[in-house]
Amino acid sequence: MKESALILANGLFDSVFAKTTHGLLRGPSKYEIAGVIDPTHTGQDAGFILDGQKRDILFYRSVSHALEYVQPTHCVIGVATVGGKLPRLLREDLLTAASAGLILVNGLHQLLSEDAEIAEVAQERIIDLRKPRPASELHFWTGEIFSIPTPRIAVLGMDCAIGKRTTAMLMQKKFTELGMHAEVIYTGQTGWLQGLKYGFIFDATLNDFVSGELEHAIVNCYRETSPDVILLEGQSALRNPAGPAGSELICSAQSAGVILQHAPARTHFEDFEHLSHTLPPLSEEIELIRLLGSEVWGISLYTQGLDQDESAKLSAELEELYGIPVARPLEDGIDRFVSIIQEKLHHDH
Amino acid sequence: MKESALILANGLFDSVFAKTTHGLLRGPSKYEIAGVIDPTHTGQDAGFILDGQKRDILFYRSVSHALEYVQPTHCVIGVATVGGKLPRLLREDLLTAASAGLILVNGLHQLLSEDAEIAEVAQERIIDLRKPRPASELHFWTGEIFSIPTPRIAVLGMDCAIGKRTTAMLMQKKFTELGMHAEVIYTGQTGWLQGLKYGFIFDATLNDFVSGELEHAIVNCYRETSPDVILLEGQSALRNPAGPAGSELICSAQSAGVILQHAPARTHFEDFEHLSHTLPPLSEEIELIRLLGSEVWGISLYTQGLDQDESAKLSAELEELYGIPVARPLEDGIDRFVSIIQEKLHHDH
Repeated sequence: MKESALILANGLFDSVFAKTTHGLLRGPSKYEIAGVIDPTHTGQDAGFILDGQKRDILFYRSVSHALEYVQPTHCVIGVATVGGKLPRLLREDLLTAASAGLILVNGLHQLLSEDAEIAEVAQERIIDLRKPRPASELHFWTGEIFSIPTPRIAVLGMDCAIGKRTTAMLMQKKFTELGMHAEVIYTGQTGWLQGLKYGFIFDATLNDFVSGELEHAIVNCYRETSPDVILLEGQSALRNPAGPAGSELICSAQSAGVILQHAPARTHFEDFEHLSHTLPPLSEEIELIRLLGSEVWGISLYTQGLDQDESAKLSAELEELYGIPVARPLEDGIDRFVSIIQEKLHHDH
Repeated sequence: MKESALILANGLFDSVFAKTTHGLLRGPSKYEIAGVIDPTHTGQDAGFILDGQKRDILFYRSVSHALEYVQPTHCVIGVATVGGKLPRLLREDLLTAASAGLILVNGLHQLLSEDAEIAEVAQERIIDLRKPRPASELHFWTGEIFSIPTPRIAVLGMDCAIGKRTTAMLMQKKFTELGMHAEVIYTGQTGWLQGLKYGFIFDATLNDFVSGELEHAIVNCYRETSPDVILLEGQSALRNPAGPAGSELICSAQSAGVILQHAPARTHFEDFEHLSHTLPPLSEEIELIRLLGSEVWGISLYTQGLDQDESAKLSAELEELYGIPVARPLEDGIDRFVSIIQEKLHHDH
């Protein structure tokens, strides 16, 4: 039997903080989803609230409420917070879940195994995804990437929480439908929760080993599965002041092309709306990616804050301006990105 | 009495692997240097071998040899290795030093406190500079950097081991001579060993907290010392595939300007001479830094592999080509960088 989990979203389901919950609902998920905890939606269908697609997964107001109806094996924290601290309002649900014998799955920096109160109740039934691994278990970059023939495509973004992982997962699905074998290298805890086999938790890795862990994941993936294409999940953004990232995916993984996530209606970096610092322009990002050694093959629009007409119009305008395929994954699908990747890779051979 | 140390360079003194040793000899140093261990130079003056300046510090062939002549309190590993592994040939000297009651100071990723044999002899007398700190002790980036009026200048480089820290230290010295107060934020173990107060070990920090630790060091430095200028020691290079770095110093620290270290005779990234991958051109790096949000104010030449005439000629050519002051720190000094920084900052006020 597949393991099943309650997902804690506790009042944050309608925000980007719950992107892990959204990803698991959209699927795939390592665990069958037994329910989502969020009192603002008690009794509603979580899939329907997410994107209008009924998924027969209900919201419950608390873990104890859910346990009256379902028998899950795991309890997953489905919210991310700035700096990875454990929100106080999750504590009671975590303790209830632990008391009921569920395995707690935590993707926050703050480790449940180091929380005296929770660890006492949960004992060994804790999976801390972001528990840092020591240097002795990590890989340094070697350059072996240059001998891996499978092309790498990086999904980068202009910001955090802008749809990078979703686009990568949708592309993998499409490649599969076309009879091609695509693997996604995860770089965040949600990818692991979605059941991806190759990858590492980028932000919980000692800085000196990020490039090496990325290379190692790609090399392992190639050796064990020989895919046609490897998609790399990006983190943060090249110029996100809270933690610039992405050059590893270009320089260390030697990505042939980039699909770039862009949120046209967003003006500030996620969580830093109070700063005067605004998001840099898309045109610069395209040039930056070229200078780092890759090329933007597709622009993927995160349409929050725009209506259908606005985003469709903008999509067409950007495509004309840059001469690069533009699509809105959730509205248009990602077929055009898959096509351009196939076309570009075909040209190289 | 100032603490004093033996520095282990064990056969690597003449290579860039001993850059920590070189930095400590050039000074400043947290510890008075009692001697350098390297059997290839036994009996010679370490300063004289380094740069022709006698410093009354001798080379000894081993720790036990040195202990016949000097009474140090510490023993510092003065070599860095790819991936931070402990070279086997240091083991005997470390054990001898530990047996003699010296405190072992280690900047490698491989922790002496986790080496059963060494830890048994040294007990608590171990300082592991790169021992990772847990997330709970680390700072996330907040944006407070935007309220710090002291200008930040980043010293970046086209590669590792190319003179970034040396240039930063020389500039600090020059500012002091001019009656200005400059602080250097260290980002590597050598900076700490040189007695710098503000900074963190970049590559031993969990990736999500690199930007925050950098911001925190700058904020603390500003609050406690109110300097006229803050110099940031760069690590690696923006496009070093083994671990790209530097965008944090521009985006997260909001550096006003950059002094860029360039090694004209170097063709490959340090330690990766066997790869086909070559160093990218200087012109692209200047543009990359502009796109990341800063500006190259000075180009600093690392002249290894060039004779005096060649490097002087190249220096003049590059200056004409880019219209940016170019200097060779060890031959010309860094006065021109200090002047251009003063000039640029003066224009801003």
